[in-house]
Amino acid sequence: MKRVRFRDSAGNVRGGRWTVEDGEPVVTAAAGPYGRIAFGDESYAPEEVDVLPPCEPTKIVCVGRNYAEHADEMDNDVPDRPLLFLKPPNTVASHDKTVTLLANKDRIDYEAELGVVIGEQCKNVSQRNAEDVIAGYTCVNDLSNRDDQNREQNWVRGKAFDNACPIGPLVATPEHVPDDATIETRVNGETKQSSSIEHLIFSIPELIEEITAYMTLEPGDVIATGTPEGVGPLADGDSVEIEIEGVGTLKHSVRIP
Amino acid sequence: MKRVRFRDSAGNVRGGRWTVEDGEPVVTAAAGPYGRIAFGDESYAPEEVDVLPPCEPTKIVCVGRNYAEHADEMDNDVPDRPLLFLKPPNTVASHDKTVTLLANKDRIDYEAELGVVIGEQCKNVSQRNAEDVIAGYTCVNDLSNRDDQNREQNWVRGKAFDNACPIGPLVATPEHVPDDATIETRVNGETKQSSSIEHLIFSIPELIEEITAYMTLEPGDVIATGTPEGVGPLADGDSVEIEIEGVGTLKHSVRIP
Repeated sequence: MKRVRFRDSAGNVRGGRWTVEDGEPVVTAAAGPYGRIAFGDESYAPEEVDVLPPCEPTKIVCVGRNYAEHADEMDNDVPDRPLLFLKPPNTVASHDKTVTLLANKDRIDYEAELGVVIGEQCKNVSQRNAEDVIAGYTCVNDLSNRDDQNREQNWVRGKAFDNACPIGPLVATPEHVPDDATIETRVNGETKQSSSIEHLIFSIPELIEEITAYMTLEPGDVIATGTPEGVGPLADGDSVEIEIEGVGTLKHSVRIP
Repeated sequence: MKRVRFRDSAGNVRGGRWTVEDGEPVVTAAAGPYGRIAFGDESYAPEEVDVLPPCEPTKIVCVGRNYAEHADEMDNDVPDRPLLFLKPPNTVASHDKTVTLLANKDRIDYEAELGVVIGEQCKNVSQRNAEDVIAGYTCVNDLSNRDDQNREQNWVRGKAFDNACPIGPLVATPEHVPDDATIETRVNGETKQSSSIEHLIFSIPELIEEITAYMTLEPGDVIATGTPEGVGPLADGDSVEIEIEGVGTLKHSVRIP
């Protein structure tokens, strides 16, 4: 199942299903085939509706340096336990939109990440039971303002600014997503990141056990599992696509005032 | 005006007024006079109802090292701009409750703080207009797990664990709170912190301008403005009171499994 939230032409918020056959791209780089969004007895082309974030997180718990080659490109060591940080709800932005980022910064980077969407309120979940609390997977762009990130103890200005977390377009239930799913970023059509979630240092069950030892997760909360190598800066007008095998493609463009 | 959220005897959530005369303690250390909670044509003693957090923050934006003597006691320098960190909604706990904290930690500290409660959705608020977006003030206990805080880049395990932010009991509109309001912590009746909000390094308007340059604040969001000197550890069974002049007293006890 691939679930999507959207506003229909009357402005009503709906939870529908994205009826895409496995293997078919959810969004193509050009205005190609999209699949359809179904709700009740109606169905829509995605461009007919206003696609919303696929979940409403009360918090996004992010993991830094969770791919060895990315830690290396940033001149960081691989951590001995998950490096956690937070993105609050103001960071959430939708698929197929233009997100306005911070002005007067030297470098704001894309970071493609697999997002784990939580399906039930949970605490102290063991690795063994972690699958039970996963609603599915989505695509996350962990936008990062390096100017401030490199100057602060906690990455608040660096990671928690408005629109710092485009997410979507849908939540794919786990059976759609292979353990070695590819994850790829394209900027203006050019491939910038290309890896596989099999390279995660801390696995999804390990992350869920560690995070829920400290905090209750709510339905719709997201764990952003870290980005692979190949991060880089965005410029005003850039178009970003983040494609995860079995999930689909999150697309957005960037405005930097 | 002093506003309080509570559940009445039927379990309904209400927004009432805490009818306390200025100067009268909202909660006394002993089971003394409390004032009354009024809603519609009913009024209650606070112990008759279930006092809820006075607001429902989507995020709590916290400020570290915002009193010089506290920075000094922690062997830290005073920062050149506000040190920000985040507490997500899972940290919120209510007045007059027992909060269960993390097991197997050497040191979890109390930190009394003035909480600024935001009254309207806002972004890019200048210092000059900061008062317009303040609904009022409340008491915050920024509970801090030093074991993990001292080992991590972002203070997530250290500051964002469940129940790490007792808050309340009410929101007092600004005219109740003098610029030099006293802020005090008592643990089991013994005074541990005693200072005044006049010693804030970065003022409330400065904090609002800085934070809203990066993120939209929502009604009910809280800025926790930092703690004065005198922080210290809590033990299982301790009773904590945080009293801010013009606001009232947040009281809770602590369970450490």
